[in-house]
Amino acid sequence: MTTPLRLGIAGLGTVGAEVVRILARSPDMIGARAGRPLQVVAVSARSRDKDRGVDLSPYDWEDDPVALARRTDIDVFVELMGGSDGPAKAATEAALERGAHIVTANKAMLAHHGQALAEAAEAKSAVLRFEAAVAGGIPVVKALTEGLAGNEITRVMGVMNGTCNYILTRMETAGLPYETVFQEANALGYLEADPSLDVGGIDAGHKLSLLASIAFGTRVAFDQMQLEGIERISIEDIRQAADMGYRIKLLGVAQRTADGLEQRMMPCLVPASSPLGQLEGGTNMVVLEGDAVGQIVLRGAGAGAGPTASAVLSDLIDVAREFRLPVFGQAAQTLADAPPSQSATPAPYYLRMSLQDKPGALASVAAALGNAGVSINRMRQYSHDDNAAPVLIVTHACARSDLDAALQALPDTGVVEGDPVALRIEEI
Amino acid sequence: MTTPLRLGIAGLGTVGAEVVRILARSPDMIGARAGRPLQVVAVSARSRDKDRGVDLSPYDWEDDPVALARRTDIDVFVELMGGSDGPAKAATEAALERGAHIVTANKAMLAHHGQALAEAAEAKSAVLRFEAAVAGGIPVVKALTEGLAGNEITRVMGVMNGTCNYILTRMETAGLPYETVFQEANALGYLEADPSLDVGGIDAGHKLSLLASIAFGTRVAFDQMQLEGIERISIEDIRQAADMGYRIKLLGVAQRTADGLEQRMMPCLVPASSPLGQLEGGTNMVVLEGDAVGQIVLRGAGAGAGPTASAVLSDLIDVAREFRLPVFGQAAQTLADAPPSQSATPAPYYLRMSLQDKPGALASVAAALGNAGVSINRMRQYSHDDNAAPVLIVTHACARSDLDAALQALPDTGVVEGDPVALRIEEI
Repeated sequence: MTTPLRLGIAGLGTVGAEVVRILARSPDMIGARAGRPLQVVAVSARSRDKDRGVDLSPYDWEDDPVALARRTDIDVFVELMGGSDGPAKAATEAALERGAHIVTANKAMLAHHGQALAEAAEAKSAVLRFEAAVAGGIPVVKALTEGLAGNEITRVMGVMNGTCNYILTRMETAGLPYETVFQEANALGYLEADPSLDVGGIDAGHKLSLLASIAFGTRVAFDQMQLEGIERISIEDIRQAADMGYRIKLLGVAQRTADGLEQRMMPCLVPASSPLGQLEGGTNMVVLEGDAVGQIVLRGAGAGAGPTASAVLSDLIDVAREFRLPVFGQAAQTLADAPPSQSATPAPYYLRMSLQDKPGALASVAAALGNAGVSINRMRQYSHDDNAAPVLIVTHACARSDLDAALQALPDTGVVEGDPVALRIEEI
Repeated sequence: MTTPLRLGIAGLGTVGAEVVRILARSPDMIGARAGRPLQVVAVSARSRDKDRGVDLSPYDWEDDPVALARRTDIDVFVELMGGSDGPAKAATEAALERGAHIVTANKAMLAHHGQALAEAAEAKSAVLRFEAAVAGGIPVVKALTEGLAGNEITRVMGVMNGTCNYILTRMETAGLPYETVFQEANALGYLEADPSLDVGGIDAGHKLSLLASIAFGTRVAFDQMQLEGIERISIEDIRQAADMGYRIKLLGVAQRTADGLEQRMMPCLVPASSPLGQLEGGTNMVVLEGDAVGQIVLRGAGAGAGPTASAVLSDLIDVAREFRLPVFGQAAQTLADAPPSQSATPAPYYLRMSLQDKPGALASVAAALGNAGVSINRMRQYSHDDNAAPVLIVTHACARSDLDAALQALPDTGVVEGDPVALRIEEI
């Protein structure tokens, strides 16, 4: 089969430019693996004049990505613009309308419109692939849809936002407060234009919602995810956690429970000696658990031009090889509606609070927890110079609802200053 | 597409029985993912009467795997018998002769006959898949042939024999000598009938040779691998390595060098804090490095019925989905002959030897190393009660040929007792 696979690439940021560069540099290697040449026909981006360090003269230029998507001389529309709506969605829909294949890195678009886009693609027997949307260069979508396809998946976990992991790692190693490291990361260009996408856990949540859909055969349900960012993590929490043998990670967990689908993306304590605990800087890690395979751990760069381009190329080569797969691993029409689980799987929790220095203060906190059904595993009170004593509690495994009841009862004790910090401990 | 994919399964050990069990238990899940039913038509094994804990009555029985392979009512011949030659090879060839697809877990057969079998399969437009042959449930063949297909692979590393890793881990944690742990492992049934397949590094070497072929587009060249087992590793080496921040692993490394392809499977020291260093027990880990993606680490169970069956099912579902891929990722006819690299990439080495307790002994050893171009980074001499002093040396990075020259010169010093132990240090 030597008919070239003809590509239209929309979006020439670092990733798009890198895809063009690799295709121009290694046509023989990629052609040998794909079984046919991959040929860029036309490209589109906001500015035609910008120097991207790659020669665009061999390719047609389209100012409008929708016009690019509509060109009948391209087989695959490669969407690397980003954004959940706007031009990315309009162009993707236009390409699907005429039955072109889609390769995209756009997690936000798929988290919000994945079901509709998948149905549109499958109605036209087109493929829509998104390896680059989740965990950068780690072939995790492929591992779930194909590599572990013989398994009932029991749990998916992941640290999938490199910026958050960078911030948390840097806070620990440099002993710096959140705000300082956040500013550093911003200055280094690590943060999205809207930083809450990163530090609010939204970007990582988008990714988890896509993996959950594949893993559990359910419709993408990003709006049902429990989402909590890292903005409230203090250097004290990081130190205390380390002192007890834990690290704090923005950890995503998706699993089926008795009453539905649990999806959480929130800061958690994980054992410092575990693979997730040892993950540093911008590296991503995904943990997949299946009934036959047990636990599979995948680790690699979660972002960056090279790793993301690697994932885009993998998808393109699969399209060239005529691999035809439903978008989320099984026909979109057959994906189930999973009701959100009403309660998180029980777990131990880490609590940090300031207690007023009066007799009986600790006892009344312990009583408030006990009354809510939360029992204490470990407790430490630290020496202090002012009127408020830092107190640290690790509970036994308890239901989140019981913990919430306990947290609501704490102000009534009259001995707790401010809002306690409560973080889930994930023993993995 | 609702035409079932019809399977003939040869070999009903723990893996074969588990594949049958999962197909019987989860036909709907697997059918939904594969896009069509997977139907076992006939099976074959040595003994028909053995209780395998799975109901075989729905399937035809064939005493002869070659007869099973020749049945025209099966689309895929699933070879789970093992053995590089004999019935496994005869049956696989018979199936390929009539253009049936092959799914196999047989690393030995592919390490020895992979090129011929791949050419036979591709001549008939049949696929031959072997995910289960390498690193159990870890989808590493898929990661290399597909997930990282856009990369020039620069290096492949792996700990891929769970038994060796179990033995080395257990020696360290229990402080037991090799021979004792070897007997334990044998009693637990962890070892192959011919234990040298495990502890001699052959089984892991088979696996590495397959990954190297995919990674570098070269013909499988198991016979050109530098192979060294763990039989000579002593508890002293493990302790000394730990004392210097290293762990000893049976580590495979494949990489291109200026003059060819380097393939090594041998005990190495790796940093105790690295992902490879932290790998315990029977778990496998594969590290893949590509020019675009950087480093990808995959970790999971390397053996066992469930993980291996998971890999077999992944291959079967891919066949059902009509994924057509050359056996080693590109047409077998295009695979290059890679000359074995004449020299290993330079590395530091760990040396342990016994020195006679005479004046100038250490100096003459240092001189012998220096004369061969091997310079010393760290050296320790331990206190001792008898006439021979244990001495430990860590060299600076040097060529293996220089090290070998130094080792050959050591007896001439007249101060070294017995054979020194030399282990490569892989800084990863």
